[in-house]
Amino acid sequence: MPVKTIRWDDDRIVIIDQSRLPLETAYISLDTCDQVWEAIRRLKVRGAPAIGLTAAFGVYLAARASKATEVEELLSDIDRAAKYLATARPTAVNLFWALRRMQKCARQKAAAIPDVETVKAALLAEAQSMIQEDNAVCLSIGYHGLTLLRPGMNLLTHCNAGGLGTAQWGTALAPIYLAHEQGYSLRVYVDETRPVLQGARLTAWELQQAGVHAVLICDNMAGFLMQRGRIDAIIVGTDRVTANGDVVNKIGTYSLAVLARHHGIPFYVAAPRSSIDLETSKGEMVTIEERDADEITSAFGVRTAPQDIEVYNPAFDVTPAELVTAMITEVGILRHPCEVSLAEAKHTAFKMSEAVRKRLEDT
Amino acid sequence: MPVKTIRWDDDRIVIIDQSRLPLETAYISLDTCDQVWEAIRRLKVRGAPAIGLTAAFGVYLAARASKATEVEELLSDIDRAAKYLATARPTAVNLFWALRRMQKCARQKAAAIPDVETVKAALLAEAQSMIQEDNAVCLSIGYHGLTLLRPGMNLLTHCNAGGLGTAQWGTALAPIYLAHEQGYSLRVYVDETRPVLQGARLTAWELQQAGVHAVLICDNMAGFLMQRGRIDAIIVGTDRVTANGDVVNKIGTYSLAVLARHHGIPFYVAAPRSSIDLETSKGEMVTIEERDADEITSAFGVRTAPQDIEVYNPAFDVTPAELVTAMITEVGILRHPCEVSLAEAKHTAFKMSEAVRKRLEDT
Repeated sequence: MPVKTIRWDDDRIVIIDQSRLPLETAYISLDTCDQVWEAIRRLKVRGAPAIGLTAAFGVYLAARASKATEVEELLSDIDRAAKYLATARPTAVNLFWALRRMQKCARQKAAAIPDVETVKAALLAEAQSMIQEDNAVCLSIGYHGLTLLRPGMNLLTHCNAGGLGTAQWGTALAPIYLAHEQGYSLRVYVDETRPVLQGARLTAWELQQAGVHAVLICDNMAGFLMQRGRIDAIIVGTDRVTANGDVVNKIGTYSLAVLARHHGIPFYVAAPRSSIDLETSKGEMVTIEERDADEITSAFGVRTAPQDIEVYNPAFDVTPAELVTAMITEVGILRHPCEVSLAEAKHTAFKMSEAVRKRLEDT
Repeated sequence: MPVKTIRWDDDRIVIIDQSRLPLETAYISLDTCDQVWEAIRRLKVRGAPAIGLTAAFGVYLAARASKATEVEELLSDIDRAAKYLATARPTAVNLFWALRRMQKCARQKAAAIPDVETVKAALLAEAQSMIQEDNAVCLSIGYHGLTLLRPGMNLLTHCNAGGLGTAQWGTALAPIYLAHEQGYSLRVYVDETRPVLQGARLTAWELQQAGVHAVLICDNMAGFLMQRGRIDAIIVGTDRVTANGDVVNKIGTYSLAVLARHHGIPFYVAAPRSSIDLETSKGEMVTIEERDADEITSAFGVRTAPQDIEVYNPAFDVTPAELVTAMITEVGILRHPCEVSLAEAKHTAFKMSEAVRKRLEDT
């Protein structure tokens, strides 16, 4: 079972300090809204869902610490906390979503039962249910994805679409964790994922912690492994799926999809419905973020390229829908995804399967 | 014009200390055979042809320092020096070839004119002519390759098949240098080439020194550039071409060839005939060297992966002949290379073109 990235431990949040991975496994407690802000800012917690969940608890911690005796006063303390937490990572969409959800919860509860302690309790319950929902979505992706795996398979993944970016199970890695529990004895090749090395630092670490057989490679070795018949399937996550099924994900994903097609290897994308963006028609419409040159020229504090060399550092790429064998969502597997099936998936009611429900009760 | 990696400066060898690149451009003088051994051992000189050329001068330096008064005694000093130099990089085939050639030169000259000073002079002339031959081969590749380029092209290269691995011009980069001189205003994307970063450290540096517009990228970004129409051709070098035209080269080359095919981009291999191995029928027969895990897990002295993580680190891969658009040799361009044309190329007499001859006189 993967480690818990975020959990509520009676009266405080406990998170893995991801800024110290992969060399040190340190859990830290967050007791105050300020500590939550700091943890998000200093990348102790990272990955869109994990940031949102931590911030949700941050709003509760602010409410708990509030000296307000009137509900209106408490609501304004909560709004102030949300505004403050939003400054920790100014581009994190999930963060804003989580904060708005907590504010809405407080307002609705206050309107129904205008009692300070009741509102505070509702906020704690809301944050806790957000963790449960995250686990339910990830586990559902896991069980659907499991149907694509067979014992003894050799898989390849890129970047980190694992538990560390969510509450516990991750998206692309969830099927792997469930398969591992069932004794599938998989081997998972992990692209180190230049320039920031999320594969080497995070994915390799969390697979290792869970006892999954992980093998670290450089990104440019994946094609050779495919040529030699040593990869049976590729599973990656996504930052955004556009309406036509194009997949925006960490730079390097597109190359893997082309290589997979050349070698006849299935290419799967784990896509929680929160990543499906029906407003954007196709991948070409998405602006690709370009990041600082020093991620490439001064990796890990050591300068490895000439001074003043020009650098091109796109953070993401776009994999066209036709290269995706199937998308794994929490409501099922979409093959040959097109606008209709994505829209259907987006609007299908999510029902937890019996397996997921049982699993959530167990943990 | 590219910098001179190795030159004979009146009474000593002058090389660029490649172990200090890309941050420092330091030339060092080698006056003794011991210094040559040290320079090869400590990777101050690297790249098969460059190592061989430096070692050849090392044999001369040993002969020069010999106190022998009899030719037989000098020959045994020379043999001792060659044996010693061979231990500097025990797997460098070019090194052994260069040493044997110098030993043979000494024996032949001694048989013809058994005079100590005459033999010494012959050794210096032989080492100097080896540099001239290297320049002639590289420039010939350059002029043949130039016919494949057009002004304004965007090129991509991988690893270092540049001047730093030869006396001056390199193989894959030779056409680029000649095009640059003719005002082609190329843009050359340089794969950083994990794990050892020869692209970032060496290729980016030498292109920059020569004033070529170089743009450094991570290996996993090349596919995205091709998708966006930003690469017109790919040029790489090779460690070995097998009889059927398969290309053994730095890990990552094969993925580029597949991506190039997917996008309809020409994929060129600069292959001096010394790299054509007619004894080996196809790429599959070549054992791929696997290197130490810490090249990947502790890049540049900083640990970036969990302790005890399993690593797979192949140093080379094999690009099948059918993915190669053309090979650029010193005797001409081979399209759809097959056993016959490779064997023909290997056995064709090498004639310097007028352009190359003129060029060599100029420099």
